[in-house]
Amino acid sequence: MITSKDNDKIKYLLKLHTKKYRDQFNAFLVFGDHQIEEANKNGYSLDLYTSNPNKKGELISEALMKLVSLTETPMDSLGIAKKKEEATYSKRILMLDGIQDPGNMGTLIRSAIGFGFNTIISSLDSVDYYHERSIRATQGNLFYANLVKAPLKERIQALKFLGYKVYVTSLKKSKDIKTISPSEKCVVVLGNEGSGVSQAIIDMADELVRIKTNDIESLNVAMAGTIIMYEWQV
Amino acid sequence: MITSKDNDKIKYLLKLHTKKYRDQFNAFLVFGDHQIEEANKNGYSLDLYTSNPNKKGELISEALMKLVSLTETPMDSLGIAKKKEEATYSKRILMLDGIQDPGNMGTLIRSAIGFGFNTIISSLDSVDYYHERSIRATQGNLFYANLVKAPLKERIQALKFLGYKVYVTSLKKSKDIKTISPSEKCVVVLGNEGSGVSQAIIDMADELVRIKTNDIESLNVAMAGTIIMYEWQV
Repeated sequence: MITSKDNDKIKYLLKLHTKKYRDQFNAFLVFGDHQIEEANKNGYSLDLYTSNPNKKGELISEALMKLVSLTETPMDSLGIAKKKEEATYSKRILMLDGIQDPGNMGTLIRSAIGFGFNTIISSLDSVDYYHERSIRATQGNLFYANLVKAPLKERIQALKFLGYKVYVTSLKKSKDIKTISPSEKCVVVLGNEGSGVSQAIIDMADELVRIKTNDIESLNVAMAGTIIMYEWQV
Repeated sequence: MITSKDNDKIKYLLKLHTKKYRDQFNAFLVFGDHQIEEANKNGYSLDLYTSNPNKKGELISEALMKLVSLTETPMDSLGIAKKKEEATYSKRILMLDGIQDPGNMGTLIRSAIGFGFNTIISSLDSVDYYHERSIRATQGNLFYANLVKAPLKERIQALKFLGYKVYVTSLKKSKDIKTISPSEKCVVVLGNEGSGVSQAIIDMADELVRIKTNDIESLNVAMAGTIIMYEWQV
């Protein structure tokens, strides 16, 4: 049983709390039986650690499990998962331009899987998909997603070449989504919580779209995205 | 300028961080210019405090403002608002049975105002509307809402007597919301994040409803509620 926080494996686990090292090692942490099960089911390779002698994985002390976990009530198992290679685009794609809140990110991934937007492409300045709070908010749906992080302009050019139409959310000069029949291959673009989608991306839109509401205050970005994906689900 | 945390006014401000005292004094805190403006606009009476000599309100030191604020980057103004009396029911009502997460609560209030569900009724065991994270998530929309906290069973009986139909979300034995035309006066009931709506309330439903998704994992409760209110907006 590992009991020292100076153990190299524990040091590695702790490093994976930060995006820098998740990027460097191309790996991330999953916590608890449900996340581990969903990761396994979707072919992720996992290194398991546990504080419960009856569970699979290398045994570590409860104190270390608490240290490595990021919540006040730690699970008794965790795994290090390798990120997956990019897969084929789904027909419906969710694109995120500068989303900052990990809760919004995770919620959007969860809704995207629910409505068939299995490919998600986020800008380089968006919050990390693999932030602990993002993974938690996906409720296990993260492992069903094809997650891409890339400069958006080049991706949009390539997607248009492949026949995708690009629908960008905007409060100005936009059409009510209820009045639009999206093309079979479509990209829905959501923007930053404060400033929305950047102008350079708005300029590349095939259509600007919005959701009809009673007042001028916009919806939370995760709500807006969920409604559009619900309307345009496959 | 108030500089001591032993000042009676500061002690009172600090007490309002907890639900117990918000209930006892029938008051809550609002932070920053936007919230204060929205509260004023909607007729809330406010006692203002600020660390900025150029702003309205009793002057307090920056250190105290930081202490009283609940975020790492405090605003320079805050107010104590008196809760409002219950108002007339809106035709569309959102009912919450055991919602626990303040972020979900605030997001639901925000969406409810966006879609004309201005009356919100939550069970006694739901998280406080006036939790700081809830208020923040409403983005100023809290002050437009008619917020009621009450035992749900009695309320449902009274609402039915007034001609309301009650639509309860449930994954079992439920109809796709797309197939239903709600009555003009309607109540949408959402449940706890883990366990959903309690059986006693399910038993009182006029209809059980759900949202069609691609997989069996349910949506986050704030997403589900937002979609239904979007579909049934007035």
